[in-house]
Amino acid sequence: MNSGELTELGQQLRVDSVRAAAAAGSGHPTSSMSAADLMAVLLANHLRYDFDRPAHPGNDRFILSKGHASPLLYAAFKAAGAIDDEELLTFRELGSRLEGHPTPRRLPWVETATGSLGQGLPVAVGVALAGKRLDRDDHRVWVLCGDSELAEGSVWEAAEHAAHEHLDNLTAIIDVNRLGQRGPTRHGHDLDAYARRFQAFGWHTVEVDGHDVDAVDRAYGEALSTKGQPTAVLARTLKGKGVEAVEDREGLHGKPLPDADEAIAELGGPRDLRVEVHEPPTTRMLHAVRTGPVELPRWERGEEVATRDAYGRALAALGDGRGDVVALDGEVSDSTRAEFFAKEHPERFFECYIAEQQMVAAAVGLASRGWVPYASSFAAFLTRAHDFVRMASVSGAGVNLVGSHAGVAIGQDGPSQMGLEDLAMFRAVHDSTVLYPCDANQTAQLVAAMAGLDGIRYLRTSRGKSPVVYGPDERFPVGGSKVLRSSAEDRVTLVAAGVTVPEALAAADALDRDGIRVRVIDLYSVKPVDRATLRQAAEDTGCLLTVEDHHQEGGLGDAVLDAFLDGRPVPRLVRLAVRTMPGSASPAEQLHAAGIDAESIAASVTLLVEQAVVR
Amino acid sequence: MNSGELTELGQQLRVDSVRAAAAAGSGHPTSSMSAADLMAVLLANHLRYDFDRPAHPGNDRFILSKGHASPLLYAAFKAAGAIDDEELLTFRELGSRLEGHPTPRRLPWVETATGSLGQGLPVAVGVALAGKRLDRDDHRVWVLCGDSELAEGSVWEAAEHAAHEHLDNLTAIIDVNRLGQRGPTRHGHDLDAYARRFQAFGWHTVEVDGHDVDAVDRAYGEALSTKGQPTAVLARTLKGKGVEAVEDREGLHGKPLPDADEAIAELGGPRDLRVEVHEPPTTRMLHAVRTGPVELPRWERGEEVATRDAYGRALAALGDGRGDVVALDGEVSDSTRAEFFAKEHPERFFECYIAEQQMVAAAVGLASRGWVPYASSFAAFLTRAHDFVRMASVSGAGVNLVGSHAGVAIGQDGPSQMGLEDLAMFRAVHDSTVLYPCDANQTAQLVAAMAGLDGIRYLRTSRGKSPVVYGPDERFPVGGSKVLRSSAEDRVTLVAAGVTVPEALAAADALDRDGIRVRVIDLYSVKPVDRATLRQAAEDTGCLLTVEDHHQEGGLGDAVLDAFLDGRPVPRLVRLAVRTMPGSASPAEQLHAAGIDAESIAASVTLLVEQAVVR
Repeated sequence: MNSGELTELGQQLRVDSVRAAAAAGSGHPTSSMSAADLMAVLLANHLRYDFDRPAHPGNDRFILSKGHASPLLYAAFKAAGAIDDEELLTFRELGSRLEGHPTPRRLPWVETATGSLGQGLPVAVGVALAGKRLDRDDHRVWVLCGDSELAEGSVWEAAEHAAHEHLDNLTAIIDVNRLGQRGPTRHGHDLDAYARRFQAFGWHTVEVDGHDVDAVDRAYGEALSTKGQPTAVLARTLKGKGVEAVEDREGLHGKPLPDADEAIAELGGPRDLRVEVHEPPTTRMLHAVRTGPVELPRWERGEEVATRDAYGRALAALGDGRGDVVALDGEVSDSTRAEFFAKEHPERFFECYIAEQQMVAAAVGLASRGWVPYASSFAAFLTRAHDFVRMASVSGAGVNLVGSHAGVAIGQDGPSQMGLEDLAMFRAVHDSTVLYPCDANQTAQLVAAMAGLDGIRYLRTSRGKSPVVYGPDERFPVGGSKVLRSSAEDRVTLVAAGVTVPEALAAADALDRDGIRVRVIDLYSVKPVDRATLRQAAEDTGCLLTVEDHHQEGGLGDAVLDAFLDGRPVPRLVRLAVRTMPGSASPAEQLHAAGIDAESIAASVTLLVEQAVVR
Repeated sequence: MNSGELTELGQQLRVDSVRAAAAAGSGHPTSSMSAADLMAVLLANHLRYDFDRPAHPGNDRFILSKGHASPLLYAAFKAAGAIDDEELLTFRELGSRLEGHPTPRRLPWVETATGSLGQGLPVAVGVALAGKRLDRDDHRVWVLCGDSELAEGSVWEAAEHAAHEHLDNLTAIIDVNRLGQRGPTRHGHDLDAYARRFQAFGWHTVEVDGHDVDAVDRAYGEALSTKGQPTAVLARTLKGKGVEAVEDREGLHGKPLPDADEAIAELGGPRDLRVEVHEPPTTRMLHAVRTGPVELPRWERGEEVATRDAYGRALAALGDGRGDVVALDGEVSDSTRAEFFAKEHPERFFECYIAEQQMVAAAVGLASRGWVPYASSFAAFLTRAHDFVRMASVSGAGVNLVGSHAGVAIGQDGPSQMGLEDLAMFRAVHDSTVLYPCDANQTAQLVAAMAGLDGIRYLRTSRGKSPVVYGPDERFPVGGSKVLRSSAEDRVTLVAAGVTVPEALAAADALDRDGIRVRVIDLYSVKPVDRATLRQAAEDTGCLLTVEDHHQEGGLGDAVLDAFLDGRPVPRLVRLAVRTMPGSASPAEQLHAAGIDAESIAASVTLLVEQAVVR
């Protein structure tokens, strides 16, 4: 399109943004209006995208990092013929695909859910990495960011990652409209302030008047021709551009225009321009993903193996069989054992350094391109990425997250390194799967099973060695459990997982010597839980004693309740969990101090028997 | 001290680091050795600190952001005479104050717990802010950072915050030893790469050989004389400096030296230098904290008020009465209503822009100086700061966190903006308090009560208006609840909090018309819960039906279990919670779609009656 047409298209996008927000009675038209010209030029002259085939591998990718400007995105979809005007006006209605913030659950042209700021660019880095290092096609990744969100540290993790990987297929367009939600940003219209930061992190930058369509067109062209580094187009814009009542004014964030009809008139009235978006190039399949049988490692009963070691070995083996499996790590792969994968499959390993938000975001981006990512760090440090996990769930992204060094069992390093809230965090994520194996064979089976699940899947591994409890041919369905001790005389059921399984077994043996029989369940699938087995145990023994290396809230003890929430009788419940702030001590001392070792479990059961709480 | 003495002191710190780690059989001597000269010069020539009076307001503050280098810190404490050699060798033992990573719970000279990287500088910004804007004394804040941790975005949030606030009382010392845990960092010994980044963010930088004590001494002097901006001292160092077997070598992170005796000999053997640390200056009390009676706002029954509005009003009133209350917000104070405080007490309000990690870190820093911070954002976005909340808990920091716009009740904005996992996140934090008021008077009372609690306190507020249920003189003790409907014929107990309280009351009224009496409990204190009232309800009605605007895991439904975890009989349980991924819709439509509105509650109870699940 030429300048005149582009300007007209920008006005149409503004008008349609105003109309959508007016119809909804809410939304962010002013944040849409600042970026309308930026979007018009991109859509008409640079984006290569087949809206009829959103899965086309040659399609460019566009991510609206400032997700609240969704009216602009939907107006662009309309201009491209992807949705009609009637649908545009369903914005924010119950059942509409056009949500307040865009999500790929509803719209096929949305790469990732946005709306939590500072996440679009980090995910885009993952998408661009897939293009550059794995797919090796020449699709381009465009991200439209707000200026306010550059205050999020995650943006600078992404900036660092993108420059380090020389992602010249990535362009960030920054809509510097100088106004955040509450008021002016730190840097206002000082484009140089942002340019200095991006340049320092290794990016090419272009500063431009974001309402000069020719200048914007040239800036995008410069981005496309820049090699070896990503480009940030820093565009000076005005929030609410084009309507005097709202243009560049404070206090109007996230509000429909006061008089939509007047505003539309001022913008020149409705238009019905239709953009013929460039077709994606015919892609050559440079990279064929190999798949074959997966031969998982095997261990014999009696060996002592850390589940983190089993994770690394299993992941490497999974990578042998499945060419679509990739791994990421937060600069601790020697601890998480992701290094076993990295050594065998360096081309599919992504070192994310100490930037857990970026690691999870990159995994989401890779997953959006069809790769099956496993991202690992210490369980404790995955809390750093909680908001990214939450948004990945909103996206419906399929990512595997692996937290090592869980619980007080790590020993001397102390509480800062202990994952004691990870089960709570991952259980509360919508549609998540939470797995916590106790031995090497179980770990290997679950690592392989995770790849085939939907949504967020979390695996919790342990630092220290533990006995191999199961034979290598045992199977561990997700949603299952293993009954390790059972008799008709069981007076209580011990429910354990991970490091507390050997403790529960030892306690059961000690109690047995005292004539007290107990059932032991290995609840390796923390979410979903094995309802049938737990209900049977409740019926048979009347009391469940849960033992977990985790804070008492949100973990295993709460998880067993999922079997009893429909109004049926609930068994008696006793919970052994970490209730005090640990210090440094040996692993065995830690388990004892927390009251979750074999001795503590046996003492608790004995007390319950003495108090006649159990039968 | 002169050069020769400083060099000797550096060697002593190395030797003692090696000895401590050797005694423990674990720890990070090599990471301590790189920074030993940096620490020696600081301790001997620049730090002003009275180790006998750690609470002295004139003390400088030192934060070891690279907390794994704790042997160095403890070696410095020994050199300063704060601990003796015997205690040094208790490093990492059960019960020792000298934990794997330092925490203020055990050691009075530690400002904040570290060990999760990228947190020391953010917290230091809060400490420096307190000095600059509140205490207005001239104490200096020194932070020793690793180079690896500069990959964390939180460091750049802190860099931005510090420069924007012109914190020239803050010096970051970066120990650029080029080796992370797994291997080389992105930038190796390229000090310029770091300098460019810090300069772009508005810092003064000094590059220096970190083993040249005179150069380091001059660099600190330059930092002290730099006005109007913080300084980063970028020091080129060698990991494991001084012992050839480990110096500048990979694969030796977090491991005691292979031959400690030989290493100690190579370092010139043990020394027993004692540093006379400079006394802090006599402080003039420039800022007297005013305290007086707190007159909370009052609302009458029948008014419609959003609890976020009540939060803002109550916080402003609390600020009138208590001069030690400060507020922080993540650029959404017009939504959280922290703006009411900001308008009345601008000198005690801290705009943190969209950087939730930095907001929480700054709150922790302010709290360490005796201030009582309230930090607010959308509940959903507090997940961004999960790791900072976790570490604040390890510190034992007293901070108030307030999450607005909780749950599906926000309506059209959609799932990215809905806090649906915040209760789970905050419940799982050690020693936390979790409060979720349903009306304005209750909110005001709880906002005031929070100030007097220990640890992490979380308040959940709602976007929409809701009826004032309680009179302005009602009291709401933390750990309490309110029984809003009760009779001898109650067949089930509805347990609600926040937005589901009015729904539960409406359901109770509707059921009453059908001849079904139900008890209604307002469980505004989600942690700790009111065990007595819940147990009484269980005894009286036999069944608890929880209703919450939160995912089904980790929230209210799990919280009620805390009353029944000692083996006593557990009532039947039914849980109404958000089980599907919401889209956009009106608040009423959202509550209905999630099955947590009055109609859904009444229908559930009717079903339980029909199925004879309840009496």
